[in-house]
Amino acid sequence: MYEQSNITRNLVDYGMKQFLLNLQSLVRIPSVSAKNEGLLEAANLVTKIMRKAGISTELLNLDGREEFIAPIVYGEVKSKSNPNGKTLLFYNHYDVQPVEPVSRWERHPFSGQIVGDKIFGRGSSDDKGELMVRIKAVESIINWSGDVPCNLKFVVEGGEEIGSPHLGKYVRRFAHKLKCDGIVWEFGYVDVKDRPIINLGMKGMLYVELLAVGPCTDIHSSLAVLVPNPAWKIVNALNSLWDEKTGIIKITDWYRECRSLSSRELSFSAAQPAFDDFEFKAKYRLDHLVSGLSRNQIRRALAERPTCNISGISPGYVGAGAKTVLPMIARAMIDFRLVPDMIPEIQFNRLRAHLLRNEFSNIYVKFVHGLKPYRTYFADPFVRTVVGAAFAAFNQKPIINLSSAGSGPMSLLVESTKAPCVAVGCSDMYSNIHSYNEFARIPLLKLGTKLMIELINRFASAY
Amino acid sequence: MYEQSNITRNLVDYGMKQFLLNLQSLVRIPSVSAKNEGLLEAANLVTKIMRKAGISTELLNLDGREEFIAPIVYGEVKSKSNPNGKTLLFYNHYDVQPVEPVSRWERHPFSGQIVGDKIFGRGSSDDKGELMVRIKAVESIINWSGDVPCNLKFVVEGGEEIGSPHLGKYVRRFAHKLKCDGIVWEFGYVDVKDRPIINLGMKGMLYVELLAVGPCTDIHSSLAVLVPNPAWKIVNALNSLWDEKTGIIKITDWYRECRSLSSRELSFSAAQPAFDDFEFKAKYRLDHLVSGLSRNQIRRALAERPTCNISGISPGYVGAGAKTVLPMIARAMIDFRLVPDMIPEIQFNRLRAHLLRNEFSNIYVKFVHGLKPYRTYFADPFVRTVVGAAFAAFNQKPIINLSSAGSGPMSLLVESTKAPCVAVGCSDMYSNIHSYNEFARIPLLKLGTKLMIELINRFASAY
Repeated sequence: MYEQSNITRNLVDYGMKQFLLNLQSLVRIPSVSAKNEGLLEAANLVTKIMRKAGISTELLNLDGREEFIAPIVYGEVKSKSNPNGKTLLFYNHYDVQPVEPVSRWERHPFSGQIVGDKIFGRGSSDDKGELMVRIKAVESIINWSGDVPCNLKFVVEGGEEIGSPHLGKYVRRFAHKLKCDGIVWEFGYVDVKDRPIINLGMKGMLYVELLAVGPCTDIHSSLAVLVPNPAWKIVNALNSLWDEKTGIIKITDWYRECRSLSSRELSFSAAQPAFDDFEFKAKYRLDHLVSGLSRNQIRRALAERPTCNISGISPGYVGAGAKTVLPMIARAMIDFRLVPDMIPEIQFNRLRAHLLRNEFSNIYVKFVHGLKPYRTYFADPFVRTVVGAAFAAFNQKPIINLSSAGSGPMSLLVESTKAPCVAVGCSDMYSNIHSYNEFARIPLLKLGTKLMIELINRFASAY
Repeated sequence: MYEQSNITRNLVDYGMKQFLLNLQSLVRIPSVSAKNEGLLEAANLVTKIMRKAGISTELLNLDGREEFIAPIVYGEVKSKSNPNGKTLLFYNHYDVQPVEPVSRWERHPFSGQIVGDKIFGRGSSDDKGELMVRIKAVESIINWSGDVPCNLKFVVEGGEEIGSPHLGKYVRRFAHKLKCDGIVWEFGYVDVKDRPIINLGMKGMLYVELLAVGPCTDIHSSLAVLVPNPAWKIVNALNSLWDEKTGIIKITDWYRECRSLSSRELSFSAAQPAFDDFEFKAKYRLDHLVSGLSRNQIRRALAERPTCNISGISPGYVGAGAKTVLPMIARAMIDFRLVPDMIPEIQFNRLRAHLLRNEFSNIYVKFVHGLKPYRTYFADPFVRTVVGAAFAAFNQKPIINLSSAGSGPMSLLVESTKAPCVAVGCSDMYSNIHSYNEFARIPLLKLGTKLMIELINRFASAY
């Protein structure tokens, strides 16, 4: 098998120019799902690139609806030599986060500009870079052998960055197409020592909007003597949710369904290299981390702690000079990360009850989207296969987290397929995903491609 | 004197077309002081209009500085018949508030469009409309008699909407030019029954920015497990400042220098028509006013209560879709209205001490601008003169407030000149000043012009 890998390694290097051209053209499509922009265009380009790679591709659609729902790009390669063997499924997405504030980007967010060994632009890592790596790996294997060693499937959706609102329906409608024996999740990180970081789970998400209404128009703030300012209501309500000092969410029963990590899980997690909090703090210029977390508690906290984060709050700051206004509306957007076995809808009801109980009945709260958390058990054989492939490609022992700190619809695919799911990839852990100046490191894209080739080969042999 | 007034009334009607053309051209200059835009252009146009009206006009400048300081348009008309008599001074401003959010304007904010009996646009009331009324009144008197019955002065500044940061220096530097015996402040309102509302004072202002710093860049909000979110710090700090339920500012010693209204002032205030809270609530579609104020307490509260208002808070809401980000910076802009004898600098130190004492030492607080409060005593003879003029012009008994709920640099001019100062004018009290869709009612502009003619004549006879 190693001989095979060496040959494909050469193929990877050889095809790098075309790879980067494809990734650039994909980054240049501003497929921002939050704005419903560029999604069909991106789906079509992904289809084209996948077909050229030798993957049978079709667009899946949910029909009979009035609203636009981004299609899923579904891809399949049957193994000629092993058609009744196991199937590996790649989950990715072609949509990206919004790019605001645009002024903070040093290069145009959709330029795909290459500077040195980096490619810049929204999606260059998350998730267009990761997607291209997987397509490229399959293409390299087909180019080399005319076949693939196991059956392969691709599910590339267009709504991940808005919480995959329709993925559940897709999964139910096309369950027959999604059958598989192992799932490779959309992303994976690489730390500053080029060690791959593998995540065995995803947190869930409850994303809500709080809204308080004031007068029917913005008014002169001298009238604050008479008129309640909705911004104060929002501030008071927010203040009741979270204890900044302890990092504890103050909503009654919030933690009730949190499943504690088992002693086996805890020792597994403790055996991983310590999180480099010094480097992390230096990178983001932080004095301290929340709640005085010690270095050894960090990996556990990332996997296990629910959060309550203010993503946005308005009326926004107006910039230069003073504007003395009492706003008609105030809002806050909050993302709560959930851990097994919390359920977004139940947590939402608890939040609503909390607001009512605490005299915030004048705050409207909207369920924007929710995702259930999921974790693959660390001792699953599929985890061993993935870890082995990553070790071989990066020539470094991977770091394994019981769960990512991030969220994604992993539970939806796992509940339908009953297959284990692992997140592994090649994005620099400081590549500014979801922020401005997102980039991907080209050498890591190469290593990522090699990792995927290793994984496909090892997965085929393991069964 | 009434004969004289009747003749000038005809002159007012006659010159209305030119008046509106002049006001439109002034509204069309976007002289937003917060953005340092269009100020010189507006000052020059005001100069031109004043000269044409027969007012000797010059631009006052503070020289020897590197930064741009908006000039003051200073105007003077000596009475030929009464050159050693008393002097009446008009204080106005040619700068305007920002127009954001532009999307909420139904007409272009700088269009000066006339629809029916209204003229629309930023500054149409505050303060270009009020300024034009006064210039027009003087012009009418000069046109009729070739003279003015008393000496008149104009001080038209360009920084009122950013807290008049340089007016104090102007007043010290040009004190000799500002000598006068009575001051007419920049604005005055008219209620829905067309009753003029006269204000005898202005609140002071402490405008501050609170700033909390997080990571050196916006980051993915999954890292909220580790990284303190500066928005939480701002929310916690804001929450410590103000008790929404009682309307009380919770900063130690905040109210120490508040001078209570005397029993004479209270009975004077109580004798004014009750504030129409029903109409007010209907206008702004409010369920209730703050702190359960009863109808009879409202006028007193408007004059006497300090406030603490959130004008802006960021990171702003990003609109459509979800963005799960942990922001690098969070800010809040707060305007505190002050009453006699509070001093902005002392209150600022109390705010700073409050933040330190309550473990908000990681919040930066910036003094953006400050103004001292001032009230002219209600029994001053000048007040009687103004009230008489308003009664004559509007043919309705004016409503007199011991102080406006708003702020302005009244104290600066009064401390220098020792002259009584009253705010009287003709802006519809629901004319959306400082908000979007600002307008002026043309019939009120006419009545306002008549009021100023009456005032000038009565002031000349009273001394």
